[in-house]
Amino acid sequence: ELRAHAAAFFADGVLAGRRVLISAGPTREPLDPVRFITNRSTGKQGFAIAAAAAAAGAEVTLVAGPVTLPTPAGVARIDVESAAEMHAAVLARAPAHDIFVATAAVADYRAAAPAERKMKKSAETLTLDLVRNPDILADVAALTSGRPFCVGFAAETHDVLAYAEDKRRRKRLDLICANHVGAGKGFEADDNALHVLWEGGSRELPLADKRELARALVALIAERYAAA
Amino acid sequence: ELRAHAAAFFADGVLAGRRVLISAGPTREPLDPVRFITNRSTGKQGFAIAAAAAAAGAEVTLVAGPVTLPTPAGVARIDVESAAEMHAAVLARAPAHDIFVATAAVADYRAAAPAERKMKKSAETLTLDLVRNPDILADVAALTSGRPFCVGFAAETHDVLAYAEDKRRRKRLDLICANHVGAGKGFEADDNALHVLWEGGSRELPLADKRELARALVALIAERYAAA
Repeated sequence: ELRAHAAAFFADGVLAGRRVLISAGPTREPLDPVRFITNRSTGKQGFAIAAAAAAAGAEVTLVAGPVTLPTPAGVARIDVESAAEMHAAVLARAPAHDIFVATAAVADYRAAAPAERKMKKSAETLTLDLVRNPDILADVAALTSGRPFCVGFAAETHDVLAYAEDKRRRKRLDLICANHVGAGKGFEADDNALHVLWEGGSRELPLADKRELARALVALIAERYAAA
Repeated sequence: ELRAHAAAFFADGVLAGRRVLISAGPTREPLDPVRFITNRSTGKQGFAIAAAAAAAGAEVTLVAGPVTLPTPAGVARIDVESAAEMHAAVLARAPAHDIFVATAAVADYRAAAPAERKMKKSAETLTLDLVRNPDILADVAALTSGRPFCVGFAAETHDVLAYAEDKRRRKRLDLICANHVGAGKGFEADDNALHVLWEGGSRELPLADKRELARALVALIAERYAAA
């Protein structure tokens, strides 16, 4: 049924004429020239959504953290490394796009003072002082001019639905995709399942290959964007 | 000349009958189920040395951190993630090997208390408490029974020769390869250059493709191992 639903939308080129901005992958927050903090995001889900949006007729811009994936056909890709770089790349482009899908697993914190030279190990213990990174999705959703339709993700190991609904309201998102991470789903897995929430509604997109799930999600985004 | 030198050794199968243990790649030190500290090592140099040692007739065991490289032909590979896992895998196998080449970029520190659940961002700042990891190469070099011939690497952005010589003496290594990192060399690059030091001697292996450099280094290791 999902597949038929998605197929109907794609037959229409339902995102034809729309500009879609997508962030994907992890970010790297340098501690020194060789060490950094990052996370297990592979970028697969975001790249699959970029491919599905392009297939649905959209003009797609993909802002990608360091991943080892090929650029989907017809997609304009901008590579970044840190959360600060991703923030700058996304905020500069967001007002020119109709829809922003924030799939990137952006590091919440960066080193307060990255070392210019490789750190020497000497002490038995070490304390790292971190400061909070800017919130890319919240900053886009708060744009007063040229604000795109905003789609977020909440990837959690526990209490994912409650956390996602809170995040949707707090950041004033149009859609949020709750993503339970772990046990073959989400990070580093080929399959994923999403529970998509919006003001006054929700839909479950059951466990599927990330590419198939991306097509179903793009169909749902097009539906909700049209209704907005 | 270097190439001819290396070719002469390979013609002899100069490591035939020798068991060589090699560590390669970065390690990942978890902060929580999705976040971790790591470094820019790609494992290329270590995998190239494993391939060159196997080509020189050695029985090769490769203990690899998370990398995206294929296993060289004829090499037995053990995948690990954290420094603690790499330490256990290497120490368990070292006494059964004649030569240990420690190319891995092992994280010096790990989180004192990794979170079991994904950390929530809330505070503007965060302090991470780290503790020192065991020193794999020093522990192998300090083995009183079954100690292999020990080859280390010193990858530095500054003062690499002085640091390498200090590391060689401090850890009682048989050979150390000083590796100046940066500007197209070392981490994330296809080319590398090494200055190899031992007690009473040294040799420069000039800038070359990592595979060619690996063959020259394996020839030198065989020469120094035979002289030891």
